[in-house]
Amino acid sequence: MNFIEPKILKGFRDSLPAEEIKKKKLFAILEKTFASFGFVPIDTPVLEYTEVLLGKGGGETDKQVYRFTDNGGRDISMRFDLTVPFARFVSANLNSIFLPFKRYHIAKVWRGENTQKGRYREFYQCDFDIVGADSPAADIEILTMIYQSFKNINVNDFKIHLSSREVLNRFLTKLGYGEKLTDILRIVDKLAKIGKEEVAGQLEKITGNKEASEILEYIKTGSSFDETLKKITEAAGGEAGDTERLKIIKNVLSENGIEEHFVLDPSVTRGLDYYTGIVYETFLDDAPGFGSVCSGGRYNDLASLYTKTKLPGVGASIGIDRLASALESIGKEEKETPLCDALIFNIDENLLGYYTKIGSMLRQKGISCEIYPETKKMNKQFGYAEKKKIPVGMICGSEEYESGKVTIKDLVSRENFEKITFEEGIAKIRSILGK
Amino acid sequence: MNFIEPKILKGFRDSLPAEEIKKKKLFAILEKTFASFGFVPIDTPVLEYTEVLLGKGGGETDKQVYRFTDNGGRDISMRFDLTVPFARFVSANLNSIFLPFKRYHIAKVWRGENTQKGRYREFYQCDFDIVGADSPAADIEILTMIYQSFKNINVNDFKIHLSSREVLNRFLTKLGYGEKLTDILRIVDKLAKIGKEEVAGQLEKITGNKEASEILEYIKTGSSFDETLKKITEAAGGEAGDTERLKIIKNVLSENGIEEHFVLDPSVTRGLDYYTGIVYETFLDDAPGFGSVCSGGRYNDLASLYTKTKLPGVGASIGIDRLASALESIGKEEKETPLCDALIFNIDENLLGYYTKIGSMLRQKGISCEIYPETKKMNKQFGYAEKKKIPVGMICGSEEYESGKVTIKDLVSRENFEKITFEEGIAKIRSILGK
Repeated sequence: MNFIEPKILKGFRDSLPAEEIKKKKLFAILEKTFASFGFVPIDTPVLEYTEVLLGKGGGETDKQVYRFTDNGGRDISMRFDLTVPFARFVSANLNSIFLPFKRYHIAKVWRGENTQKGRYREFYQCDFDIVGADSPAADIEILTMIYQSFKNINVNDFKIHLSSREVLNRFLTKLGYGEKLTDILRIVDKLAKIGKEEVAGQLEKITGNKEASEILEYIKTGSSFDETLKKITEAAGGEAGDTERLKIIKNVLSENGIEEHFVLDPSVTRGLDYYTGIVYETFLDDAPGFGSVCSGGRYNDLASLYTKTKLPGVGASIGIDRLASALESIGKEEKETPLCDALIFNIDENLLGYYTKIGSMLRQKGISCEIYPETKKMNKQFGYAEKKKIPVGMICGSEEYESGKVTIKDLVSRENFEKITFEEGIAKIRSILGK
Repeated sequence: MNFIEPKILKGFRDSLPAEEIKKKKLFAILEKTFASFGFVPIDTPVLEYTEVLLGKGGGETDKQVYRFTDNGGRDISMRFDLTVPFARFVSANLNSIFLPFKRYHIAKVWRGENTQKGRYREFYQCDFDIVGADSPAADIEILTMIYQSFKNINVNDFKIHLSSREVLNRFLTKLGYGEKLTDILRIVDKLAKIGKEEVAGQLEKITGNKEASEILEYIKTGSSFDETLKKITEAAGGEAGDTERLKIIKNVLSENGIEEHFVLDPSVTRGLDYYTGIVYETFLDDAPGFGSVCSGGRYNDLASLYTKTKLPGVGASIGIDRLASALESIGKEEKETPLCDALIFNIDENLLGYYTKIGSMLRQKGISCEIYPETKKMNKQFGYAEKKKIPVGMICGSEEYESGKVTIKDLVSRENFEKITFEEGIAKIRSILGK
């Protein structure tokens, strides 16, 4: 017979158990954090009308979209992010939800990216937003939730770099380059990647020498939040609502004793994205090379494509794959736990009913366990426990069964606790597991 | 401006927060149950090569598959179940996993079904299997895990109907209709749907009158497991490994005191599926109209399409949408819990830092809470709490702030607890929440 090669598409991956468990743990911590802030989960279809996802535009992203015609002749596409489906969701469900609406969404998205850059074509995004509120309080809630998320995944050394697109716009307009905003943003956004010299060079092609220097001076981070704020306020022509908002944010962060995690960094612009207020990126101190692992900002209208209802909002997105890689690189990833606490050795097929009963009793005590499914040789069963990293073995042959005893094996230290009562056995298992 | 209608594809749905939370709770209980039996999660790509998913065949399912050509000219499809991707996964990862391999997978699948029948084109499946073991112990583990899953989702009245394809095959072969097996299975499988008379009529077109009666007699459920087992053993020509296995299963279930949930029901055949040993379906006593909510069986070779390695296994699949509907119909669905425990009223913008601090303190105590994002009128904030079913309000104006007190409002009973200390406030919140 000719077998079909069980091959996988380029840019796609299987998730093996150890990895899948780690991912689920990370998601669980994030979800618990989001819920503690009153954020609620939603989900949307993976497939949508292409027109709904892409609008009438035809940008860079479009070429990467998995787009096709279904059997009913509809032009449909797979979602390539969670923002556009969210905008569609809010517009379609305005009568069922209520504003301000605080949602999170952790789900897969698909993009036909160039895999040579080490990118995957199927990956997770994790988005959270507050829509229907344009206030410093909403900005602060997102920022403190990002802070709390990193704390909860046990990362203590991170910085959230933030700035204001409004202040930047005022500054560039004052400089006379309001119309060149897009080009300038595109260049400034590359600062981390190409360096100051190269940015200066590229800016000078658009602006004069003097203005290029002023822009470079503007995007420099000062020695403190206050100093940077003072500098950009002056550069933008004085105080206004935008700088006042940055001041409120700073004061709240200080009052909460968490300002050390926040840097006012005017070079953060989020490039060509649709942000209109504060913008931010998050870097792990010990893994700067991974770039921002959580980015976002304030926008003044989420769903302008679908509805005339104005929906200002603020949100952020965690790059789950990038974050997981970064955590792994600094040894902060979720610890690999045993895939099962205890193996009940299957040594007498007549005792299957008893093994099943023991299994239920252990599970009721919160100890996960499995019965080896066949009465195979002991070394085979030991080998299985070892591969699955199961730390405890429970052995019960006919002799133990008749005397109402069990034997517990610490499969790591190889210590045996022979013929003890079941209750003693459970206590022993708990002490081996440390729980 | 012309807006794009935020419409959704036929057969697809948005999942609103209340529903999404219920679904996540159901998944969490199932996953916890599976993990307690040592089952581990995996994930596979949503997109696969069409050849890998469909083999060389062209069955009924094929027409329903979302299939297209990607930008690289590859013929690709979206997964339509979790069994085929699992077979591909095991074949591709034989070196990374170890047998017996016990996995679960809860994920979305897509089928272009006829939506007139109330079917959705995007839905969840929840599969669990043990591969690499052909033993009664493995059969029993799956059956007890199904039992425990229903117990854990708080359903006590359910029956798992099981039978053996092997015994049925022996019986039909003895009757002289081994070759008509497929046709007969197809007819018998419709028993619940079309009734005994109609089944008899259809059988008579294939077999004689007498044989049709014998088949009808065979598929009748007796008054007890033992009686039915005796009847089918005789009909199949006496005892063999297959009836011995049913006997072992029965004895283990009895020894564990759970046999009342199991019915030996020879009419269960799982139609044309690829099962070769025991097969089973699960019905809720109080919602029989929903049909089987968890079905499966034993197969002798999972991945014969991809590898010469023989992979016998046993598994089952929970129809998540059907189960959720059935649970809802009998009032056993997960209870709707408040989307957030407490709302911190935003009545003084100068106190935003303090509100933020209170919020962190409540969350540290395990109380989820949010600050209303704007200093809007009180009735607006009350309205928000009501819509989001938030049971507790915390109010702190400048007067309370200066005296170090807070006011707690029970938003259900409308009782107020004015100007109490923060510690008293937390105790009050706990008592209102009952936690």
